[in-house]
Amino acid sequence: MASDPSFRTERRRTLRVDRLAMAHPGDLSALAALIEEGTVRADEVVAVIGKTEGNGGVNDFTRGYFTQTLMHLLAAHTGRTPAELLRSVPCILSGGTEGVLSPHYVVFSRREAGATERGGALAIGTALGEALPAHEVGRWSHVRSVASTVRRAMADAGIERAQDVVFVQVKGPCITSARAQAAAAAGHAVVSNDPGRSMAYARAAGAFGVALALGEIADDPAQGTALLADFGVACARASVSSGVEVEADEVIVLGHSPAWTGRLRMGCAPMADALDIAAVSQALAPLAIEARPQVRPADRARIAAAFVKCEPDRRGSVRGARHTMLDDTDINAQRHIRGAVGGLVAGVLGDGRIFVSGGAEHQGPDGGGLVAVIAEVPEA
Amino acid sequence: MASDPSFRTERRRTLRVDRLAMAHPGDLSALAALIEEGTVRADEVVAVIGKTEGNGGVNDFTRGYFTQTLMHLLAAHTGRTPAELLRSVPCILSGGTEGVLSPHYVVFSRREAGATERGGALAIGTALGEALPAHEVGRWSHVRSVASTVRRAMADAGIERAQDVVFVQVKGPCITSARAQAAAAAGHAVVSNDPGRSMAYARAAGAFGVALALGEIADDPAQGTALLADFGVACARASVSSGVEVEADEVIVLGHSPAWTGRLRMGCAPMADALDIAAVSQALAPLAIEARPQVRPADRARIAAAFVKCEPDRRGSVRGARHTMLDDTDINAQRHIRGAVGGLVAGVLGDGRIFVSGGAEHQGPDGGGLVAVIAEVPEA
Amino acid sequence: MASDPSFRTERRRTLRVDRLAMAHPGDLSALAALIEEGTVRADEVVAVIGKTEGNGGVNDFTRGYFTQTLMHLLAAHTGRTPAELLRSVPCILSGGTEGVLSPHYVVFSRREAGATERGGALAIGTALGEALPAHEVGRWSHVRSVASTVRRAMADAGIERAQDVVFVQVKGPCITSARAQAAAAAGHAVVSNDPGRSMAYARAAGAFGVALALGEIADDPAQGTALLADFGVACARASVSSGVEVEADEVIVLGHSPAWTGRLRMGCAPMADALDIAAVSQALAPLAIEARPQVRPADRARIAAAFVKCEPDRRGSVRGARHTMLDDTDINAQRHIRGAVGGLVAGVLGDGRIFVSGGAEHQGPDGGGLVAVIAEVPEA
Amino acid sequence: MASDPSFRTERRRTLRVDRLAMAHPGDLSALAALIEEGTVRADEVVAVIGKTEGNGGVNDFTRGYFTQTLMHLLAAHTGRTPAELLRSVPCILSGGTEGVLSPHYVVFSRREAGATERGGALAIGTALGEALPAHEVGRWSHVRSVASTVRRAMADAGIERAQDVVFVQVKGPCITSARAQAAAAAGHAVVSNDPGRSMAYARAAGAFGVALALGEIADDPAQGTALLADFGVACARASVSSGVEVEADEVIVLGHSPAWTGRLRMGCAPMADALDIAAVSQALAPLAIEARPQVRPADRARIAAAFVKCEPDRRGSVRGARHTMLDDTDINAQRHIRGAVGGLVAGVLGDGRIFVSGGAEHQGPDGGGLVAVIAEVPEA
Repeated sequence: MASDPSFRTERRRTLRVDRLAMAHPGDLSALAALIEEGTVRADEVVAVIGKTEGNGGVNDFTRGYFTQTLMHLLAAHTGRTPAELLRSVPCILSGGTEGVLSPHYVVFSRREAGATERGGALAIGTALGEALPAHEVGRWSHVRSVASTVRRAMADAGIERAQDVVFVQVKGPCITSARAQAAAAAGHAVVSNDPGRSMAYARAAGAFGVALALGEIADDPAQGTALLADFGVACARASVSSGVEVEADEVIVLGHSPAWTGRLRMGCAPMADALDIAAVSQALAPLAIEARPQVRPADRARIAAAFVKCEPDRRGSVRGARHTMLDDTDINAQRHIRGAVGGLVAGVLGDGRIFVSGGAEHQGPDGGGLVAVIAEVPEA
Repeated sequence: MASDPSFRTERRRTLRVDRLAMAHPGDLSALAALIEEGTVRADEVVAVIGKTEGNGGVNDFTRGYFTQTLMHLLAAHTGRTPAELLRSVPCILSGGTEGVLSPHYVVFSRREAGATERGGALAIGTALGEALPAHEVGRWSHVRSVASTVRRAMADAGIERAQDVVFVQVKGPCITSARAQAAAAAGHAVVSNDPGRSMAYARAAGAFGVALALGEIADDPAQGTALLADFGVACARASVSSGVEVEADEVIVLGHSPAWTGRLRMGCAPMADALDIAAVSQALAPLAIEARPQVRPADRARIAAAFVKCEPDRRGSVRGARHTMLDDTDINAQRHIRGAVGGLVAGVLGDGRIFVSGGAEHQGPDGGGLVAVIAEVPEA
Repeated sequence: MASDPSFRTERRRTLRVDRLAMAHPGDLSALAALIEEGTVRADEVVAVIGKTEGNGGVNDFTRGYFTQTLMHLLAAHTGRTPAELLRSVPCILSGGTEGVLSPHYVVFSRREAGATERGGALAIGTALGEALPAHEVGRWSHVRSVASTVRRAMADAGIERAQDVVFVQVKGPCITSARAQAAAAAGHAVVSNDPGRSMAYARAAGAFGVALALGEIADDPAQGTALLADFGVACARASVSSGVEVEADEVIVLGHSPAWTGRLRMGCAPMADALDIAAVSQALAPLAIEARPQVRPADRARIAAAFVKCEPDRRGSVRGARHTMLDDTDINAQRHIRGAVGGLVAGVLGDGRIFVSGGAEHQGPDGGGLVAVIAEVPEA
Repeated sequence: MASDPSFRTERRRTLRVDRLAMAHPGDLSALAALIEEGTVRADEVVAVIGKTEGNGGVNDFTRGYFTQTLMHLLAAHTGRTPAELLRSVPCILSGGTEGVLSPHYVVFSRREAGATERGGALAIGTALGEALPAHEVGRWSHVRSVASTVRRAMADAGIERAQDVVFVQVKGPCITSARAQAAAAAGHAVVSNDPGRSMAYARAAGAFGVALALGEIADDPAQGTALLADFGVACARASVSSGVEVEADEVIVLGHSPAWTGRLRMGCAPMADALDIAAVSQALAPLAIEARPQVRPADRARIAAAFVKCEPDRRGSVRGARHTMLDDTDINAQRHIRGAVGGLVAGVLGDGRIFVSGGAEHQGPDGGGLVAVIAEVPEA
């Protein structure tokens, strides 16, 4: 066992995960309280993933409101400016708390754990990519750029092996009308002039980039034609969003590393479709949590966070039954699917505090997506 | 065994349940095909319960469109007029196929089964109440009227014991502005001038009426104060809707009777809240169907129909986590909850063809509702 | 004057226009009453244009509900089947009564007027095109097909000169997923696989077709590249919609003809943008109606119907001020613009019974549209 | 004329009004630029009224986002804290830029003008009321409290005569669930436990309060029964909103005063209903602006701001034509009416930058509302 790094006495890091409620998108009082009482140190916060109560679409400003409030709060406690923090602390939000979903945010903070014998725990790493020119969005150079950023985030986390990575959250830039015009003026062609379509391309490139970094696909530019075309190519550990507010990819890597200590672990499983309840059990399995059919209260208390990607099946039906999500002029299709899959996963976990995000192109099986859970495991 | 009516050779009735897809709310082609091929006889159709793809609100005209089309179809095959059929064949629709819910309708038809030894199967009975004056809507006289209609539907079904009733679907009248004015002109006070509120009162009276008919509560007018006030009083076998298009209560009773034969059976269970996944297992138990976590394909093929009532918890949270359904100006709260609970139940059953209806006041636990399933049981 | 056909004594036709209210999309009781009292003869009804209270999108079933009810009503009074009537009486509906817009329908009926001296009045003609293969939708052959159908409708109306045509309403087929697949199987390429996009192409082809029939553009297939590309090409007399429910173009032509008699006249004017209130005055001018700023009650009583096409400016602003219609995930952009332009025109006319339809590609100026009004003129 | 204070040489104040565009609700860059270039001094900003692009409902967080950003901006330039500024600079926002309405904000700043002969110009005054206990909201004591605050704002503006007041904007507190429970615990009854209803009561009390301060009604508590009951009692100079975020009434008074100088003037007129286009002309008349039918560009350039209150007619029709705003489950009624009336007024002014706010109870005629315009008048 002497060669097992998990049991060597050395300095290790430890991850803390706080899942906090908010009364509205500008309410960070729960985090402020933790900081003020000393439970969380503002300069140890490395990432935030949250679910705000907007519509999740282009005109969802709850994300910007939350982010502004977060950066002001951290700035007040770190002496750094909000603008600096914005560039160094990924804050990835999904709007839309349809149905039983509850507005909340997950704060990841990490600190030195001191010298300890026992290593092997959930690790986190983050990285920010280079600013991506608009004409590269959704192309193979974008895929490579994401892959490179993922590798840096892995290094930041101290995760060496791709197999130890459980979940990668990416947020990438898209092509706004203004950026498209600038690209055209410079003689560059963009992948799409439709901002919504460019966001889909950015998500696709993000998923391919994670797959490339994790060795699931080869670095073959010819595969670029599969973006938004061959949905058989997918990465079931990638969760990607895209937004007008970023100009470079932001990456959060979560996985297991012998250089980290603590009781947190993470499971992740692909969802075959929007009814794939078994995927939740599969994600819970490595955490020693069973759902028959619902997670027991004692186990529920161990769960620190849950993340889901999903989307309305583009073929218009789920297991042969027609759905109406894609043709609804009243409710956006992503709101529909978040509500449904959120209801399913919340029912299994017994908790509505789940990050459920739509736009799952190439992130898990076509028409499905993925589910990931962080929990504390019992003391050995 | 000689005294057991289930095993006496006598004439019995049998229920047929067809769950059919529709391409749009005016598409009854699936039923038309069954009638034309002789599988279903139009004059044997006794009730239809369906889920159309409208918004489920006041301005949801998919229900009227479907009903008009159905009555024209049955008229063409029975020689009766659409207007006559409208008064004798309950057609109870819930608008809103949020998330994975699929537009469909369940056709109940009954016929003489011939002399057979084996009795004891799912039975159906229907009844239409007297026209209810607007000033009685939501009052104890309304409760009594529903109870009386439920008893007649039980008699129609040949169900003698309240304990054999599994599920009662009621659709009752509400108070439109015009009806409120007419009542006022006649010197009568109505329970509410707000049409939406009167619909809630009508649902409450329907639930109390079912409870009264089933002997769950006493015929005590003093209990009228509990309507929309004490949600501890509830009937977990009542599913009630209310609409401007009816002037009298329509009742469909489903339960088990020795006078019926066939392999159909039904289970029903209360849902404690919107996350109560265990309730689905409980409703499946009497049908010998397990969900671990999802119903197996072979069992799924036995399921003929599923019905759910649910509602957004009026206290603003589910198991301590704030939900945003009641304060959403963009999406109606009932659409939110149908999508979430529909997603949960569909995930367990592996099928989106579920009748999920909101407005569950006094129909199962407060903040929850109920779930009911019809399935064929295997040959003994 | 002997050579002026307007003053020759000969048999003429006359148009009757009834603008009727409905309580819901299945309520044709106002027309039924007119038919029953003999004011309107069912077999003289040649076209209906209406505004139903759905969302105006793909899942707006109020149009189908109204149409089914109309065809059943006319069938009951003509001895023809609903299916036959559907193919011969254009019923063109726009869903969406946003803001002050009021659900209503305009019934056009025509009859022989007997021999009379005075000719020259509003005329109507209708025509149905050939079934259009999916791969021709949105191409120059579609443009030609519409033009041919418009010419036949002009002939039906007895309008010889293009300059006498005031307003042409077209409803054309689009490319559903099923039709696209059938085309592909037959080796044909379609203009777009996106149904929404194909509807836009169909509207564009309709507008070009009207322009071609009216001699505003040449029959030059090279101009096909201007479809949905060069919005400087536009026809300010064309109002076009597209729907999945038709397989051939339906055309209604309205204009002035010496072969018709009566007091109805029509005016039509292009709208430069969504704020172009002066266009309403321009459309009213040939009807001898002034708006300063609102039409006077006596003149309002002369107005028989009003039609508007409009759309959210694709450039994202109106007269330099940013609008938010195109980026709103909650409310469809067409609903936004109908509400705004409907409010403007209703304010000028003093009446919310206006047919306001979105999707105005090439129908009037880009970012604007057109407005048309039918009114009785005073006796000479 | 020697006694006319307008022509005495004395120190006067002057009002500056900037109507600024925003790219999103957190974008105050236009104001920041004016401050940085010295055109506006942050400590001279006395009030902001704006239109943000949320849904205008309970879950519209664009208002909070804008306000937070504004207060941070002013804090950075004044040395005061955001919390202090929040209590002293009224920032009254209406969410919802339906149709052609454009997101914008109007910044009111005032400064000493130096000694000048010519007095008589648009004046502004603000005041903050005492914190209002929840059980007083919507009662006569609330009316009196608003009246008192209006009088203080008049004094702040230097407006002595009620007849010189043109427009009063009030924002008042409502009764949240938490405040209702606290009131009940203290033995107090609240006017309504329904937060939405309490907001309507707060708006009603605000309108009555303005009317009382302006001498339009008497201080008679018996009139309290008219709140939300007798809509014949109305103040056509009151524009009132209510929100959960304030605990005391905020008041902005605009009117004419000899103690102010400059070229700004204001007009205001009641709107009889949602089609009352003549009201716009009436509001423009004192500004020497005509609309025939649209304001000419030169006059449009003189307009500094426009404010409208409106609401969907509670009787379900406008001038006899049924509207569908109140029964729409998809789009909130206030969004409908803002879009329609906004479209009308924008058409007359030729500009979509209009503050249009719903909830017009007792603010102008029932079913209508009011319209107010600020403009520069030409040099004498």
